[in-house]
Amino acid sequence: MADSPDCDLKSLSPLQLFERVTEQGEKVRALKAGKAPKDEIDAAVRMLLSLKLSYKTTTGQDYQAGLPPKDLVLINNGTTKEEDEDFVDPWNVQTSNAKGVDYDKLIVRFGSSKIDTDLINRIERAIGQKPHRFLRRGIFFSHRDMDQILDAYENKKSFYLYTGRGPSSQAMHVGHLIPFIFTKWLQEVFDVPLVIQLTDDEKYLWKDLTTEKAYEYARENAKDIIACGFDINKTFIFSDLDYLGTSTGFYKNIVKVQKHVTFNQVKGIFGFTDSDCIGKISFPAIQAAPSFSSSFPQIFNGKENIQCLIPCAIDQDPYFRMTRDVAPRIGQPKPALLHSVFFPALQGAQTKMSASDPNSSIFLTDTPKQIKTKINKHAFSGGRDTIEEHRKYGGNCDVDVSFMYLTFFLEDDDRLEQLKQAYTSGELLTGELKKVLIETLQPLIAAHQERRKQVTDEMVKQFMTPRKLAFEF
Amino acid sequence: MADSPDCDLKSLSPLQLFERVTEQGEKVRALKAGKAPKDEIDAAVRMLLSLKLSYKTTTGQDYQAGLPPKDLVLINNGTTKEEDEDFVDPWNVQTSNAKGVDYDKLIVRFGSSKIDTDLINRIERAIGQKPHRFLRRGIFFSHRDMDQILDAYENKKSFYLYTGRGPSSQAMHVGHLIPFIFTKWLQEVFDVPLVIQLTDDEKYLWKDLTTEKAYEYARENAKDIIACGFDINKTFIFSDLDYLGTSTGFYKNIVKVQKHVTFNQVKGIFGFTDSDCIGKISFPAIQAAPSFSSSFPQIFNGKENIQCLIPCAIDQDPYFRMTRDVAPRIGQPKPALLHSVFFPALQGAQTKMSASDPNSSIFLTDTPKQIKTKINKHAFSGGRDTIEEHRKYGGNCDVDVSFMYLTFFLEDDDRLEQLKQAYTSGELLTGELKKVLIETLQPLIAAHQERRKQVTDEMVKQFMTPRKLAFEF
Repeated sequence: MADSPDCDLKSLSPLQLFERVTEQGEKVRALKAGKAPKDEIDAAVRMLLSLKLSYKTTTGQDYQAGLPPKDLVLINNGTTKEEDEDFVDPWNVQTSNAKGVDYDKLIVRFGSSKIDTDLINRIERAIGQKPHRFLRRGIFFSHRDMDQILDAYENKKSFYLYTGRGPSSQAMHVGHLIPFIFTKWLQEVFDVPLVIQLTDDEKYLWKDLTTEKAYEYARENAKDIIACGFDINKTFIFSDLDYLGTSTGFYKNIVKVQKHVTFNQVKGIFGFTDSDCIGKISFPAIQAAPSFSSSFPQIFNGKENIQCLIPCAIDQDPYFRMTRDVAPRIGQPKPALLHSVFFPALQGAQTKMSASDPNSSIFLTDTPKQIKTKINKHAFSGGRDTIEEHRKYGGNCDVDVSFMYLTFFLEDDDRLEQLKQAYTSGELLTGELKKVLIETLQPLIAAHQERRKQVTDEMVKQFMTPRKLAFEF
Repeated sequence: MADSPDCDLKSLSPLQLFERVTEQGEKVRALKAGKAPKDEIDAAVRMLLSLKLSYKTTTGQDYQAGLPPKDLVLINNGTTKEEDEDFVDPWNVQTSNAKGVDYDKLIVRFGSSKIDTDLINRIERAIGQKPHRFLRRGIFFSHRDMDQILDAYENKKSFYLYTGRGPSSQAMHVGHLIPFIFTKWLQEVFDVPLVIQLTDDEKYLWKDLTTEKAYEYARENAKDIIACGFDINKTFIFSDLDYLGTSTGFYKNIVKVQKHVTFNQVKGIFGFTDSDCIGKISFPAIQAAPSFSSSFPQIFNGKENIQCLIPCAIDQDPYFRMTRDVAPRIGQPKPALLHSVFFPALQGAQTKMSASDPNSSIFLTDTPKQIKTKINKHAFSGGRDTIEEHRKYGGNCDVDVSFMYLTFFLEDDDRLEQLKQAYTSGELLTGELKKVLIETLQPLIAAHQERRKQVTDEMVKQFMTPRKLAFEF
C-alpha cells in the first residue's frame, strides 16, 4: 500500500473505511511495539492520520476505536454506492446475495442492537411464555431499547404498541402479515393497547391515486388486519386522511416534529430531492407522531408520555431513528423498536415480496390452487439441477425460498429442523419441500379468508373510531 | 455602451434587463428604418441577442416584447438583490424610498392587475353603494380575477371571503386592522360568509413559541378581530392547531396541495433553504387550503367549488399565486384576490408597521396619551426644518406618515383633500397635522377597546366553532 491512501479510498464504503483505519492503527501499534525504524513508524502514522481524515470526510464523524460508523444512514441514505452493499430504504430493498440482506451489517449500519439469546430469554421470563417463533428464529432480529420496555414492564409500568401499513392497493400478500401476526402476539402476551396507522396520505402522495381511492384501500386493508384477530377493545386502527381531521392531539405532534427536522435531515435519511413534492418532504413527521401517546387523547384519556413499542420491518427504521432523534427535544419519550427481516419474493431473497409484482407474491385472496401453482412455478429452489445431484450433494436451505417461508409459517420447531436436515442431506427433494409449504400455507390463508369474511363494515367502523380503549395507565 | 453587455448585466434586476432588451430592440428598429451602415446594424443586433440571452439566463423565460417578466417571484423570491429595488416577501418589507414600496412595479413583478377606476366603478354599480375609502384611495390597489367575482355576482352566483392573521403576539397594532376593516365592509356589501385563518401553527414554526402559547395568541387576536364587528352568523374564525384536528375536509385539501408543489417551487417562491425545517417547507399548503370551500364542509354543507375571494396585504400574494397555480390541477377554482398596500411604520414608509418594534407601532391597547406621545415623537414628518421654510415651501404629503395614516382612517374625502392642500401649501404645520391624526385615531381606538371589552369567551368559542353559517349557496 502506498503512502497516500487517497487513490483508492473513494471507492470504500464508510464501514470498509472504518476497518481500514482500525487495521492501520493496529499496524502503528505493532511497529512501535516492535521498535521499528523511526521513518517506517512515521510513514505509518501519516497514513493513519490520512485515513482518519478520509473517514471524517466521508462519514462526518470522528473515528473512534471500536465504534463503527453509527447512524450512518443519517448521512448517506443508509446505503453506499458499492455494488456488493445491500440497498435498504422504506421504498426499496435490494441485495445481490441470494441469502438475502446481510442483517448483521444492517444492525451496524443502522446503529440498532441485535436481539440475542439473552434478550429472548428475558422476554420469556417476563411474559412467562415461550417466545414467538419469529423471535426464536431471528425473524425479529434487531431492536432499540427493548430492554427498557422490559425494565418498565417488570416494574408494572405499561406501554402501548404502534405499527402500520401503507395501503397501496386492495391486495395484501402473506408478507404483509408478518408485523401484524407478531404484533397480535405482543398484544396478547403483554396485554397492551395497540394503534395501527394506515398511511393513505402517504400512498396518495407517492402513487397515482386519488385521496378517495387511498382511503378505500385503507378500509379494505383494515379488514385483513382485523382478520388477524386483534382485540377490538384494545386496538385502534386509523387512516391518516381520516384521523388527522378528528384528533385534537395528532396534528400538534406532527407540527412539533416538523419544527425539529430540517430538509437537510430528511434528504439525508430518505434521499428526497429538491424536485420532490413538499408533501413527501413533510410526511415523515406523520409517521413519527403516533409514537407519542398524546397523539391519541381519546385512547389514553389525555395521558401523555406513555412509552411506545414499534414492531416493524427494518426498512421502516429510518422514520423512527428520526423520531427518536426528535423525541427528547419535544419532551417526549423515545419509542422502542423491534425490527423484522424482509419477507422474500418468491423469486428469491434478493428482494422483498411486492404486491405490485403479482408473480413475486402470494396474496391473501389467492385460492388453494393459485397458491400451489405459484409456489411450484416461481418459488426459487436451493435444490440441485438433477435428482441425482440433489441426492448426492443435498439442497441449500440458505437460498431456498420455500424453506425460508416455512421458517415464517411452520410453528413446529422440530418439524422445521427435520425438514432442514432432510433437504440439506438430499433426502428431501425440492418438490417435496414445496409440497410441505403448500400444505402449510393453504389452510393458513383459507382460515384468514374465513375470518376476513366475518369482518363487517360495522366492525371496521368500530375499530376505526377514536375511543377509550379497555386499559388503565 | 460597449458591444459586450456582460460586464454590467449581472448588476441589473430582471425588470431593468427587460427594459434594456426593449430599448435595444427599439434601437435596432431605428437603425434599420434610418438605413444605417450594415456593420452598425449588425453590432446592434448582436447586442440585442446577447441581451436576450442574459434575460433568459436571469429569468428562465424567453423575452417577449411588451410582456415584462411575469411571476418572476416564482423564480427569484420576488426580489432582486438591487439596493434600489423593494424587498417584499411574507415576512419582510423593505424599500429605500421614503414614499414606500413602488406598488406599480410590484404589480408588474407579481403579475397581478391594477384596481383601476373602471373596476371601482363596476364594484360601485354591483353593490349600489359608495366604494370603501380603501378602494377610493388606492389602499387596496391590486387584484386577481375580481372581474370574475363580479361577473358571477351579477349573475346571482355568490362567493365566500377568506382572510387571516399570524398570531405572533397578543399585541395587535392599527395596521393589522386594515384587512379586517375592509373584509368586514366586503362581507356587509356583498352579504357573504367569511372564514378567518389564525396561523398559530405558522407562528409556532417560525418563532420561539410553544403550541400552547401560539394558540393562546390566536384566541386573544380573535377578540380583536371580533371587535371589528363581524357578523357572528356569517363568520368562522379558526386556529390551525385546533381546526386541523376537527375538520374532515381541511387536511385532505392540504395534502392535495402538498402533492402538487415541489421543494424547488417553495424555494423559489418563499426563499426556503435546505436548513429550513420541514414544517416551514410544507406550511404554504396550510395557508392555501382555506381557498377551497371543501375545507369547510360544515359551513358550506359539503358543497364544493364555491368561489373564494381573498382580501390581504400584497406580501401574502406568494401563497396565493402558488394556490392559483395548484387549484386547476386538483379540480378546484382559483381564488380571486384583492391586495392592499402595507401600513407604514411610524418612522416612515420604508418598512411596514411591526408589532415586534413597539416604537414603530400604535397598538390597539394604547391609551389616548400613548397614541399622542407616539405620533408626536415618532411619526415621520414631511414638513420643513423650520416654520419659516415650511410656510414658504410647504410640506410633502408623499412621505409624511401622519398624512398617510389619515388616508387610511379619515373617512371624509373633502377634509382629507383640504388637509393635503393646506399642508402642501405650508398653511398647515406638522404639529397641526399630527393633531388631526391624534384626534382621529384616539376615538377610533377607544371605540375598538370598548367593543373588545364586550367580546366574551363565549362569543370567541361561538365564532371558533365549525358550524353551518347563515347562508345558502
